Amino acid sequence: MIKIAVLGYGTIGSGVVEVLEKNRGIITRRAGEEISVKYILDLREFPGDPYEDRIVHDYEIIRSDPEIMIVVEAMGGEEPAHTFARNAILAGKHFATSNKALIAKYGPELIALAQERSLNCLFEASVGGGIPIIRPLNSCLTADVIEEISGILNGTTNYMMTEMTEEGSEFVEVLKDAQAKGFAEADPTADIEGYDACRKIAILTSLICGKTVDYEDIPTEGISNITATDIKYATALGRKIKLIASSFKVGDKYCALVAPFLLAPSSPLHGVDGVFNAIFVKGNMLGDAMFYGSGAGKLPTASAVVADVVDIVRHKNVSITLQWTAEKMELADCRCLKYQYFVRTADSAKTVEEAFGPVTFVSSEGETAFITPVMDGYEFEARSAGLPGIIKSIRMR
Amino acid sequence: MIKIAVLGYGTIGSGVVEVLEKNRGIITRRAGEEISVKYILDLREFPGDPYEDRIVHDYEIIRSDPEIMIVVEAMGGEEPAHTFARNAILAGKHFATSNKALIAKYGPELIALAQERSLNCLFEASVGGGIPIIRPLNSCLTADVIEEISGILNGTTNYMMTEMTEEGSEFVEVLKDAQAKGFAEADPTADIEGYDACRKIAILTSLICGKTVDYEDIPTEGISNITATDIKYATALGRKIKLIASSFKVGDKYCALVAPFLLAPSSPLHGVDGVFNAIFVKGNMLGDAMFYGSGAGKLPTASAVVADVVDIVRHKNVSITLQWTAEKMELADCRCLKYQYFVRTADSAKTVEEAFGPVTFVSSEGETAFITPVMDGYEFEARSAGLPGIIKSIRMR
Repeated sequence: MIKIAVLGYGTIGSGVVEVLEKNRGIITRRAGEEISVKYILDLREFPGDPYEDRIVHDYEIIRSDPEIMIVVEAMGGEEPAHTFARNAILAGKHFATSNKALIAKYGPELIALAQERSLNCLFEASVGGGIPIIRPLNSCLTADVIEEISGILNGTTNYMMTEMTEEGSEFVEVLKDAQAKGFAEADPTADIEGYDACRKIAILTSLICGKTVDYEDIPTEGISNITATDIKYATALGRKIKLIASSFKVGDKYCALVAPFLLAPSSPLHGVDGVFNAIFVKGNMLGDAMFYGSGAGKLPTASAVVADVVDIVRHKNVSITLQWTAEKMELADCRCLKYQYFVRTADSAKTVEEAFGPVTFVSSEGETAFITPVMDGYEFEARSAGLPGIIKSIRMR
Repeated sequence: MIKIAVLGYGTIGSGVVEVLEKNRGIITRRAGEEISVKYILDLREFPGDPYEDRIVHDYEIIRSDPEIMIVVEAMGGEEPAHTFARNAILAGKHFATSNKALIAKYGPELIALAQERSLNCLFEASVGGGIPIIRPLNSCLTADVIEEISGILNGTTNYMMTEMTEEGSEFVEVLKDAQAKGFAEADPTADIEGYDACRKIAILTSLICGKTVDYEDIPTEGISNITATDIKYATALGRKIKLIASSFKVGDKYCALVAPFLLAPSSPLHGVDGVFNAIFVKGNMLGDAMFYGSGAGKLPTASAVVADVVDIVRHKNVSITLQWTAEKMELADCRCLKYQYFVRTADSAKTVEEAFGPVTFVSSEGETAFITPVMDGYEFEARSAGLPGIIKSIRMR
């Protein structure tokens, strides 16, 4: 019997308890031993809950109990998650988490701390919710140089963009609707400004390069300035606007970027709608691959956390190889990446052509909208300087 | 330095050598040790090949060399692959293969043989070529009861169906073209009759249920009787015909089937065209997930084989848990599955309505074509008995 503690009895934490309960038989068979939740740490009481008697309010009870082999963290945020994680590992316990903020900031520290002690620190659910991506990157795509990893990594914004496309609504209406449905938080900043996707692409990029990508180094643009008008243009062009987090190998460096893109139907990410997430990976031998599924939600995310717990039980006395050191990975300037740009401006077609040369005009009613040839970010910046009336530019792919 | 032997210097075998050569640096870093090909077993000579001096013709040289830690089999077929695999493992060597015929027939025997000796027998490339699916099923989706696994598992037939859809050509023309391009073999039977997809879904189903599914128990229908007329109907209905291999959990059993389907655009497999493969998985907690990529081809497949080799190097002294025993899994009768059917018949609309009740007619020119309501296979068989002129029926989803 493996005893575990769950930190946080919110959405994910209660999901972990539910998955372990509902799939007890098959999980026991796959892990080789029964897994039982001994403690649930939460500040609140849960009178009447079937796990009421497991609730504790003092982390020290968990840390100091030698019966607890695995600590599962599902509280979110950097603190006290980080302190709890460190203390769990220092006390000889394995650690599993769904917390991307924790892993984006302290991943290499916790991994090293665990590996020194033949323990495991796993975090499959921190990126892509239920979609297996961390473990495939770590143990399946090991024969490849990963040239690109691009994904729809945030379900909230993808749901909002899908709604704006299907309903023709404005951003604020869709946000209100998403909040009402529980798809967006009361403070939606981390999602809509791209900070959540940024942390996730930092984690993925760190894993493929083996060093630490500081998420603060990644140019990040959210979707909060996308309007119904932009969506109308996208639809007229047969495209969809989606928030894409990308990393590209450029020489010995990687180049990362989070921004809305106008996706062509030929893009494998074009068909990924609603709260679904998908991660596209290009390997130099493998070619194109894609992983698709529920990027969030209680049970899908909890399923990924429990899979980590099963993997830990299977690797009780040995660290699963995870190559992510604290050495900093310098990112290349993402302006080296080449794209076509969709641009809306108050300038005349003549001014546009003076600045950009021959372009494809999309509209000249009320405002001028056009598509540039493929160019890097430096050239785009330089040419855009000739358009004082520029309203919006969105990269295309 | 890890020394390996590659059995077979054909497409996949030479791909394995190429991947190890081209990505030497990153593979060494990920495996923790350099991996070197000491022998290549092939009946042929390869004068002028950079690996000419590694070619051997006698398997005994490999089997008896204690320096060889891993035997990679890339010959295909049941024999001598099975004898070589057994002998490698009995000689204390780990084993990796891309051979689905070998694994579909001897998987549980080889896995057990390896596990008794703390060795590994891995076969990621046997299903889905370069797409990671065996390892994700085995180590990522462990918290779920898998309710469905459905896939486009054969690149040759998917290429052919895509070509027939895009070009409007007949089956025989497209087959000739696929053979000329190297996408279909001189004897295409295993692909076009669904035998290849059948072995692959047998492997996947065995892995999710932990017992052995005999591929000969799986009702298998290929694409050789799909005509340009069928494709025309599909296109008119906004659908695509694809060869789908599926397994569904029905009570305590699984129910498997390989057959062409008319896929609606809402199906996640609808957009998977050309030589690409995709595997859709539905877990009771995870919900829907999909894995997409190059299902065949030299380098993608070799990339998956080399990933197995890296995983073996990381697990030199421990068996990676693989739950697949020799105990036979009885399959449920796939007629219990419910579908709509698309039917073409020489019978009149009146006869059709007498047999099927109210249906949706698609055509009544020259022949009658219609879509049935959702029904199980028993009902469909019983009702079809009333249509002596039936030309074709294809399941829809």
